[in-house]
Amino acid sequence: MPFSSRSAAPPAAPPSSLDPGIGVNFGRPTRRAINHDGSFNVLRRSSRSHVHDLYQELITLSWGPFMALLMGVLTLVNVLFAGGYLLLGLDNLSGTAALSHIPPFLQAFFFSVQTFTTVGYGSISPNSIGTGVLASVEALTGLLMAALATGLLYGRFSRPRAGILFSHTALMSRRADGTRNLQFRVANRHRSTLVDLRARVLLQFTDANGNRSYQDLPLERESVYFFPLNWTIVHDITPESPLHNLTAADLAAREAEILILLKGYDDTFAQDVHSRNSYRFDELEWDRRYVRAYDIREDGILVLDLDRLHETEEIQGL
Amino acid sequence: MPFSSRSAAPPAAPPSSLDPGIGVNFGRPTRRAINHDGSFNVLRRSSRSHVHDLYQELITLSWGPFMALLMGVLTLVNVLFAGGYLLLGLDNLSGTAALSHIPPFLQAFFFSVQTFTTVGYGSISPNSIGTGVLASVEALTGLLMAALATGLLYGRFSRPRAGILFSHTALMSRRADGTRNLQFRVANRHRSTLVDLRARVLLQFTDANGNRSYQDLPLERESVYFFPLNWTIVHDITPESPLHNLTAADLAAREAEILILLKGYDDTFAQDVHSRNSYRFDELEWDRRYVRAYDIREDGILVLDLDRLHETEEIQGL
Amino acid sequence: MPFSSRSAAPPAAPPSSLDPGIGVNFGRPTRRAINHDGSFNVLRRSSRSHVHDLYQELITLSWGPFMALLMGVLTLVNVLFAGGYLLLGLDNLSGTAALSHIPPFLQAFFFSVQTFTTVGYGSISPNSIGTGVLASVEALTGLLMAALATGLLYGRFSRPRAGILFSHTALMSRRADGTRNLQFRVANRHRSTLVDLRARVLLQFTDANGNRSYQDLPLERESVYFFPLNWTIVHDITPESPLHNLTAADLAAREAEILILLKGYDDTFAQDVHSRNSYRFDELEWDRRYVRAYDIREDGILVLDLDRLHETEEIQGL
Amino acid sequence: MPFSSRSAAPPAAPPSSLDPGIGVNFGRPTRRAINHDGSFNVLRRSSRSHVHDLYQELITLSWGPFMALLMGVLTLVNVLFAGGYLLLGLDNLSGTAALSHIPPFLQAFFFSVQTFTTVGYGSISPNSIGTGVLASVEALTGLLMAALATGLLYGRFSRPRAGILFSHTALMSRRADGTRNLQFRVANRHRSTLVDLRARVLLQFTDANGNRSYQDLPLERESVYFFPLNWTIVHDITPESPLHNLTAADLAAREAEILILLKGYDDTFAQDVHSRNSYRFDELEWDRRYVRAYDIREDGILVLDLDRLHETEEIQGL
Repeated sequence: MPFSSRSAAPPAAPPSSLDPGIGVNFGRPTRRAINHDGSFNVLRRSSRSHVHDLYQELITLSWGPFMALLMGVLTLVNVLFAGGYLLLGLDNLSGTAALSHIPPFLQAFFFSVQTFTTVGYGSISPNSIGTGVLASVEALTGLLMAALATGLLYGRFSRPRAGILFSHTALMSRRADGTRNLQFRVANRHRSTLVDLRARVLLQFTDANGNRSYQDLPLERESVYFFPLNWTIVHDITPESPLHNLTAADLAAREAEILILLKGYDDTFAQDVHSRNSYRFDELEWDRRYVRAYDIREDGILVLDLDRLHETEEIQGL
Repeated sequence: MPFSSRSAAPPAAPPSSLDPGIGVNFGRPTRRAINHDGSFNVLRRSSRSHVHDLYQELITLSWGPFMALLMGVLTLVNVLFAGGYLLLGLDNLSGTAALSHIPPFLQAFFFSVQTFTTVGYGSISPNSIGTGVLASVEALTGLLMAALATGLLYGRFSRPRAGILFSHTALMSRRADGTRNLQFRVANRHRSTLVDLRARVLLQFTDANGNRSYQDLPLERESVYFFPLNWTIVHDITPESPLHNLTAADLAAREAEILILLKGYDDTFAQDVHSRNSYRFDELEWDRRYVRAYDIREDGILVLDLDRLHETEEIQGL
Repeated sequence: MPFSSRSAAPPAAPPSSLDPGIGVNFGRPTRRAINHDGSFNVLRRSSRSHVHDLYQELITLSWGPFMALLMGVLTLVNVLFAGGYLLLGLDNLSGTAALSHIPPFLQAFFFSVQTFTTVGYGSISPNSIGTGVLASVEALTGLLMAALATGLLYGRFSRPRAGILFSHTALMSRRADGTRNLQFRVANRHRSTLVDLRARVLLQFTDANGNRSYQDLPLERESVYFFPLNWTIVHDITPESPLHNLTAADLAAREAEILILLKGYDDTFAQDVHSRNSYRFDELEWDRRYVRAYDIREDGILVLDLDRLHETEEIQGL
Repeated sequence: MPFSSRSAAPPAAPPSSLDPGIGVNFGRPTRRAINHDGSFNVLRRSSRSHVHDLYQELITLSWGPFMALLMGVLTLVNVLFAGGYLLLGLDNLSGTAALSHIPPFLQAFFFSVQTFTTVGYGSISPNSIGTGVLASVEALTGLLMAALATGLLYGRFSRPRAGILFSHTALMSRRADGTRNLQFRVANRHRSTLVDLRARVLLQFTDANGNRSYQDLPLERESVYFFPLNWTIVHDITPESPLHNLTAADLAAREAEILILLKGYDDTFAQDVHSRNSYRFDELEWDRRYVRAYDIREDGILVLDLDRLHETEEIQGL
């Protein structure tokens, strides 16, 4: 679709104040519009909760807390079933007599894990109606929780990540001919192949009352087909640009924030990926330019160093 | 895709009566076109059924009935296998002698669950050709049903949900300058990030014979890039609007129904999501406006209260 | 995307002979271009095979053969492992002495299934290095094959199906004013919600040498937003139509075939779906029209009968 | 989407040197822009690594190394747990006395596999706190690793593959009227149904300093709806073509490389698929044409031979 759509009719002239959907009138100070991880400073409150949200939270949790939570839940479930077997009495589990040197709770816990995981050595086994029923319930529970864990782990792995790395700062740079531009760099953080990347950049001003206005910043190049290296996205500050003749102090007074949307297609997972970011007035570097982030090896291979994406240098001879 | 497509050529003038695919001539009264959950009042009858439909039904069932059904099926399968072992005779299962204080059916049922879940304590084990074959079949059945349950649970979790919350009513409101408009509010019900939302609104009139006609309602803004807060969708009732100069009684006489399509992109699951809804003439509030549904905390964070999405107030000074 | 794309610039005038990608010059008779299941009469031969193709074949196989194949493979694997245990000697499996009334192969087979499914009663267990190693290998094999079966079953269920039901025949019909048209009907075969359906129809003529030519057939309506009922797709045979003034004999002489592409969006699975079909000259009914395929129940619910999608009646008063 | 988008406004005139995102100024020789497998000659270096990248690497590894790695990890985990049981002492595992003819490590290893896979015969079972705890941990580990393996195997199978087979060489061919063209052939390598294929072709020249320039090569036909056979993609070398009047020596001097992007929709998996390739100046055959790659069987079925996609013949009568 990108092939043809890029050749579609030119974008309509932006309205004088275009709200991209994040609000215009607030009447008091708010935080930045978009955080560096692409999230918004908005909390959501509702009297209703959804199973779907729980899944989503488990899928988007980072790996450390997720594994801790998973282990915790597995342990808790087994402790609860162990308590059940203890309540029914260990003499309703045959084989426990031979394990009398082990504390009763641990005997029950070991039997619980053997049942839950379906190991079932049989050195301990139920020999009453009560323990037989409870063990049946636990074995089926174990089966379903293994199914849930499988789904969660797969869901976590297969979840698409745009993985666009943005330079830490944007630059107010200038070309050899003295014309100014706003630029920032992006690169693919992951090993996947991204193609058909396209960018849109908006400028947001906020007045003293917290009210916002928005303007489109046209780009030197709106899209690239391939994205193996880094891409420097450039807005030329022509006389028509809303940034024309504004100083750093002007931008600070207007609480300028550069809003960025990036879209592409992840060829490895066959998914569209989106990425958002913003640079505030205090994240702009003036009169600097980027240092090349890749080297060419002797065998002709390009080596892109993601850590150097952020490197800038002063523009000489200003 | 939304970037460029929104800048495509302007929509062609709507035909005088555009059928969006839900029928024009019925000849007798029907129900509303679209229900609040986005479904249509259409039943489907066919002499053929499909496995695919069964999967779909299991995926879209709500959690309560689904878990009850799953548990019921697991229990039934185990009861059936237990019946099989009973028919073959418990003396073909070694270890049952030591469990003679347990009713024969329960002995068979416990063995069945131990086999189906692959716990296999071994305190009961098959010792004849018949029970050996039946236990082999059951263990393989258990394996495949665990695989099925895994797929179903993952399918349920990973199924995309648009999760657009619509205000309970739409408003026939008016601006300070006295011009009328039709508006309603939407918000993202879930924690996922929705972007590139776009809306289309149609007006449906129905005559006394149940015959319908449709008209496009142009919107003040057709799309937003971001959707962290709520979005108020507005149709200005200009002299060109098919709603111009119509009263509540007029709309009731024509059984007016406002049909809504919303599309967006779920950035968390990398999926396009669609949502449908409608407001009937008796779900319009006249001369009211929406109360702001979010607060700004002292730390500058916006707090959106989904429960307040529906709140309206009278317009003063009419 | 469909919103805006439908409002894109009008399609360019079709070239006099547009090849949709299925070939023009063959030089000898071939079969119909598109079969009723959407497949083409093309075989593919290659000296290389791919694991991906095997997966695809297993995913698209119908349920009967798939389950038979799955059961067959599971049985075969267990027979092979059973043979291994027999070769190593049943005296290397403790517990077999008590089962001497069961034929040796069955003892080995039962042990194999107990190991493969990880039931592991333990009434039979390995007691030598050889059987210990073989049982370890089999248990791990069982684990991986269960993982494969889970993936296959989920892949089969979650595979998208367009599920568009086409009327058995297309009609050469005529309106009350005497103008002719070509029409056919489609409906959603499944319970999923399809939206944004769009159609494209091509006419293919084949000459005596098997050489084909193609022409676009413009449609009265190219797309619908909703698809809860059936949709009748109509090409008006205006003087510009390539079908103008052609008789049934003319179409037979040219081996006319109507090629159809349908696309839509499955809202239940968030997937684009495509469907292909064709009507040959001998699958056209002349001077007939469709009978309405749905009834309106007393409670206002529409009941669509998929079996009646194909029903036609003679046009009276010609 | 392809229907309408292909009818969008015509593509803008290409800029004199269009960078598709792979760089313009390098200042020293580099390798070809795109390899035959669609990859770029770019390495990525970063001080941070991601779990997501590990998953991606495991998903894209070829089957041989993947299965070896999987088996290796499973064996290693079991060896480690076996070491743990040995450290705790085999007398903490009841049942080992009867297996004293088996080396202690193997006893521990067999018990480990029986626990990890949840076979749990019970001929060996834990009888101390230490082995009980370790066996509980191992059983839960086994459960989670089975879940991971399921996800990985499904992820590998369901990963989309464009599977476009390109002819080994591109041809500088000529028509009967003497006009030259550049052409190459593609076919679907897999059994899946690809539709709505579209192509874009760029010409890249590189000067002695390693600096690149790019130009669009317009195509005779940019897209096909269906793709059951092969598709020959043709750029006519008109006087406007950047290839006009260039000889093989000219192309070699400019290190010409033909860059190709192909996109389509895989109807079997409901996914967009992309494919990239390139032909360097030394992969062009001059004054040759393709031999038809398919036969028509007597029953009218077309038989496409993928191995013959690459076959060319000299153009007679030049």
